[in-house]
Amino acid sequence: MITLNHLPAQAFIEPATLTRVTQLVQPALHTLEQGTGAGNDFLGWQHLPSGITGDQLAHIERTAALLRTGCEFVVAVGIGGSYLGAKAVIEALSDNFAAYKPAAGARVLFAGNNISEDYLAQLMQLLAGKRFGIIVISKSGTTTEPAIAFRLLKEQLEREQGREWAAQHIVAVTDARRGALRTLADREGYVTYVIPDDVGGRFSVLTPVGLLPIAVAGFDIRALVRGAVEVETAQPEMVRTYAIMRNALYQSGKKIEILVNFDPRLHFLAEWWKQLYGESEGKDGLGIFPASVDFTTDLHSMGQWIQDGERTIFETVVSLATPHENLTIPHDEEDLDGLNYIAGKRIDEVNKMAELGTRLAHLDGGVPCRVIGVPRLDEEPLGQLIYFFEKACGLSGYMLGVNPFNQPGVEAYKKNMFALLQKPGYEELSATLRAKMEP
Amino acid sequence: MITLNHLPAQAFIEPATLTRVTQLVQPALHTLEQGTGAGNDFLGWQHLPSGITGDQLAHIERTAALLRTGCEFVVAVGIGGSYLGAKAVIEALSDNFAAYKPAAGARVLFAGNNISEDYLAQLMQLLAGKRFGIIVISKSGTTTEPAIAFRLLKEQLEREQGREWAAQHIVAVTDARRGALRTLADREGYVTYVIPDDVGGRFSVLTPVGLLPIAVAGFDIRALVRGAVEVETAQPEMVRTYAIMRNALYQSGKKIEILVNFDPRLHFLAEWWKQLYGESEGKDGLGIFPASVDFTTDLHSMGQWIQDGERTIFETVVSLATPHENLTIPHDEEDLDGLNYIAGKRIDEVNKMAELGTRLAHLDGGVPCRVIGVPRLDEEPLGQLIYFFEKACGLSGYMLGVNPFNQPGVEAYKKNMFALLQKPGYEELSATLRAKMEP
Repeated sequence: MITLNHLPAQAFIEPATLTRVTQLVQPALHTLEQGTGAGNDFLGWQHLPSGITGDQLAHIERTAALLRTGCEFVVAVGIGGSYLGAKAVIEALSDNFAAYKPAAGARVLFAGNNISEDYLAQLMQLLAGKRFGIIVISKSGTTTEPAIAFRLLKEQLEREQGREWAAQHIVAVTDARRGALRTLADREGYVTYVIPDDVGGRFSVLTPVGLLPIAVAGFDIRALVRGAVEVETAQPEMVRTYAIMRNALYQSGKKIEILVNFDPRLHFLAEWWKQLYGESEGKDGLGIFPASVDFTTDLHSMGQWIQDGERTIFETVVSLATPHENLTIPHDEEDLDGLNYIAGKRIDEVNKMAELGTRLAHLDGGVPCRVIGVPRLDEEPLGQLIYFFEKACGLSGYMLGVNPFNQPGVEAYKKNMFALLQKPGYEELSATLRAKMEP
Repeated sequence: MITLNHLPAQAFIEPATLTRVTQLVQPALHTLEQGTGAGNDFLGWQHLPSGITGDQLAHIERTAALLRTGCEFVVAVGIGGSYLGAKAVIEALSDNFAAYKPAAGARVLFAGNNISEDYLAQLMQLLAGKRFGIIVISKSGTTTEPAIAFRLLKEQLEREQGREWAAQHIVAVTDARRGALRTLADREGYVTYVIPDDVGGRFSVLTPVGLLPIAVAGFDIRALVRGAVEVETAQPEMVRTYAIMRNALYQSGKKIEILVNFDPRLHFLAEWWKQLYGESEGKDGLGIFPASVDFTTDLHSMGQWIQDGERTIFETVVSLATPHENLTIPHDEEDLDGLNYIAGKRIDEVNKMAELGTRLAHLDGGVPCRVIGVPRLDEEPLGQLIYFFEKACGLSGYMLGVNPFNQPGVEAYKKNMFALLQKPGYEELSATLRAKMEP
């Protein structure tokens, strides 16, 4: 099971602050679990892991197998929570150099998560003439980024492979009844999966939104869900502790939480975490700024700032206990590079000492540091980590006093973009913006 | 030429603050250009672009051609400034899906920038039996991360291809006279390039440190250098303005600068920028925290926080004028997704309206926003951007009152790591750390 060591951070918090913040946790937990707070129509994620049935998982696995064996590439089209969960898990579980190695099944690519003309054009060039599948993930089917990508890729697939083949290799993850994508999918006979009404995007990785692309990439979604169930069921103390400590640190002037890893495959888990916490808490002029670093890489970039810059940060290290491979540092007769003192050691032992040395250095430098221990970078611990971060996030948001389940600020750029593109219905805002830009 | 529009940010600064900060710029520029300040033994980067000769560039190009045509992969071994500059430029100039497309020459990979056992083992599995080259980049040859990677890869290459072939396909970028790598390279007869004594790692991309891997990847280093020369020669006002505005914003309580792009290929340029500014300014308890986002992707993760969270941030958008490809949104008879109002438009036009809409929304939300205009994602504008950021960084650091050219904090984790690994010479610290960890 994953663990949390928060003790090194505790020294940075006044006892009175810790007491005050700790008193917030039980009411917040009650609000979350009883569904009595703001955003309580988006609490479905709490029981997703224990709620998903073996039949549902088997259905996802069958669809995944069809795409995995029948396609060279499968493009997962989605943005935000319809992108980051699957991306985080697939990257965490993949070989670092998978792109250059033979693939055992379809390779999963992502699109609809940006509006780069070059990105889409270069993707279409790659796919030209190849058998590819599409997993299109959108509640409404009208979100601009995925809608553009899907319109282009669907047309390409139908043109190149025929409409029937395309319909057999496009899967829609969307609303149960309503929306543009639901209408299209039902008519074309796509296999479909439902995004539950009570699960927001950033909490959706354990629905088909995340599970289908992860299964297509060849990973064990049953073990992932099992890990999540373990945390859902055990309700470990670490959920409360994580939420308490980050709020107490925030009250103590620590404005930035840096999620740290010592393995590059955890990069996108941090991106997923940034959406989870940033979107849940960054509102009403409040919220810890979520940042992330990949160490030791970034010890040679952000390390200087973290060690000696403004003392307004704290760190949470995701620490992997055991690597998958086994590689030791060879002995060298001459020892010009001076590494013989660690010859015979596993690389990971050096990495562990870098990690411990960094934590000690940062504590000395005035950076509170917590450690989440993860036994191995496998599906089950990842499932634990996901549910742990989700539950702690809902809790932390309520402790902060915000609605952790809305994201009103995300609409602001969209509205302006629609107005600037002269979308029907946005005439008034269009005129306002134009007036604003004139001088 | 690249441009800077700082006007939207100016409204967030009190006139008195702006006046006070503006008065710092001339003295700081004098200190920088006359070399009268702290760290003045590391000012060589200022005249690198105009100083590099055609012969030097031709030599790099010849070596690059040999590696590019003779190898399937070339591994650039380095960390920090010996990694990020080349990585940033190569990613910016590469096809988004280059890894899955046929390569015209050697593919450039990176190692020695982490201590992940799985990363190194999986890299060695990929390279097994293949003809690969190594560019090893290290002033001393003893920095832990690259030294471990180089020891392993060199042994693999010599074992598989023979010592002679290996010596012909290993290039060392290192000190002119001293150090482990210099000694080895001279004895084995490696082609070598020199890291100048007066250029620090994070300012080294326009030396062979960056230029060689960039040339191996097939890009035009003459155009890159030409772009840098243009900014070095013209000394555009935007260098001063960028430095003034960020310091004035910092004095106004804006603690985090977010470098924003709307093209995923700029992701690693932001990572390079984070090292440049974070390592130069993050010291003495001071310094803007450098962060970055890839939009519109991250509008669906960090967008909520940026729009509505604590008002302690400002943005700098790197805005690309023109894409390379040409792709329009197709018309669809049914228009279920409601996109027909933009049918016939180029994708990039939508991206531009997303960018403009975002800037207006963030300004409305209290986020000062500056825009750096870049005509195209090509070598020459990238060279301009690199030198612009470097010059503005030196200037900004002196305006802040720190030595922008040291990085004392980077040593802290290394010392602890050496002590924990019981490196000879670290016995005392080793005992101290062990005592500290006992209770």
